[in-house]
Amino acid sequence: MTKVAVILSGCGYLDGSEIYEATLTLLALDQAGAQVQCFAPDIQQLHVVNHLTGEPTGENRNVLVEAARIARGKIADVKTAKAADFDALIIPGGFGAAKNLCDFALKGSDLTVTPDVLAFARAVHEAGKPVGLVCIAPAMAPTIGGAGTKYTIGNDAGTAAAINATGGVHVDCAVTDCVVDAQKKIVTTPAYMYAARISEAATGISKLVKEVLALA
Amino acid sequence: MTKVAVILSGCGYLDGSEIYEATLTLLALDQAGAQVQCFAPDIQQLHVVNHLTGEPTGENRNVLVEAARIARGKIADVKTAKAADFDALIIPGGFGAAKNLCDFALKGSDLTVTPDVLAFARAVHEAGKPVGLVCIAPAMAPTIGGAGTKYTIGNDAGTAAAINATGGVHVDCAVTDCVVDAQKKIVTTPAYMYAARISEAATGISKLVKEVLALA
Repeated sequence: MTKVAVILSGCGYLDGSEIYEATLTLLALDQAGAQVQCFAPDIQQLHVVNHLTGEPTGENRNVLVEAARIARGKIADVKTAKAADFDALIIPGGFGAAKNLCDFALKGSDLTVTPDVLAFARAVHEAGKPVGLVCIAPAMAPTIGGAGTKYTIGNDAGTAAAINATGGVHVDCAVTDCVVDAQKKIVTTPAYMYAARISEAATGISKLVKEVLALA
Repeated sequence: MTKVAVILSGCGYLDGSEIYEATLTLLALDQAGAQVQCFAPDIQQLHVVNHLTGEPTGENRNVLVEAARIARGKIADVKTAKAADFDALIIPGGFGAAKNLCDFALKGSDLTVTPDVLAFARAVHEAGKPVGLVCIAPAMAPTIGGAGTKYTIGNDAGTAAAINATGGVHVDCAVTDCVVDAQKKIVTTPAYMYAARISEAATGISKLVKEVLALA
């Protein structure tokens, strides 16, 4: 049975993991018979956003505790994750991927990936195992996969330029498809970078999961 | 295009909507080409539960604001919902359905359904339109559909007895199936009442959505 680690970044697309992307990733993995363990960093969220108004609330919430809502409590601190225990890694999107797993939302091409997340993701990559990145999570693709990593965030030229400046090579991609860098074993799909419907995101994420498992 | 209202109860299975059930309901509706509008009551949650530890936190959160995380902000106060605007209603589960939409979690067979939720759900039912209830949301089935309503919450005899005492007629059901009361147009599926895997819940919820749309 293929063992897949999934790193979440909170619960809600404006300050954490995009809920549909996370759920659809877990669904596709389960339908494929993979065994899943969720992780998140045990840190405070960059901020908390009221998803009704889109405004920050001033509250403090913990990334691991909020991500546990998506994982139904079955989640561990990413600090404890060991690459040897897994065959692959997938990181769903949502602004949390760019706010809590790295600081791309604040710093663009000067991004730094949260140390525990980077250590685990790089270890998975360096062990020759595939890494799948959804939506804005591909902002971390060149940092994880190194210079020349091919990836997609869909068709947003400004965002792609910022990620290319970190060493990536952007490839335009339909929301219902994914991009595979077979050499780097990095797989990416746009999802809610521009999905208009949940069924579109589901199609792209199902393809990403299939490609990740094929490379595992 | 069939128009379906979905009532959410927060975001997270211990104090709000079960996230997978809500997402899978929205996915199945979108895949079937239905048009969806999410609603939630604009009230404080009964409580907030840390989903990592399972313990109450003492925080205050608003049901509508937290449910907006699942709805990606596209959600309205259930007080504004009009039965004439919709062809069907579906309510996903999670403890929020038994804590924020009604008080079944506290009062069992003496439950009261939150007034704005009950007014809308009854209006949908009385207009001869179907109502789908997932997981523990069928605790409201007899209150919405009246005495003799056939429903399922899976195979939990104690829970079924409490709901039967409000006028329901429980039917045992596999997690991958659903129960249709064709006369009352009430459709129910167990989902995370005892789903062990997200793919099982997905199968049952897909069937529920199909039956609800067939009755609409």
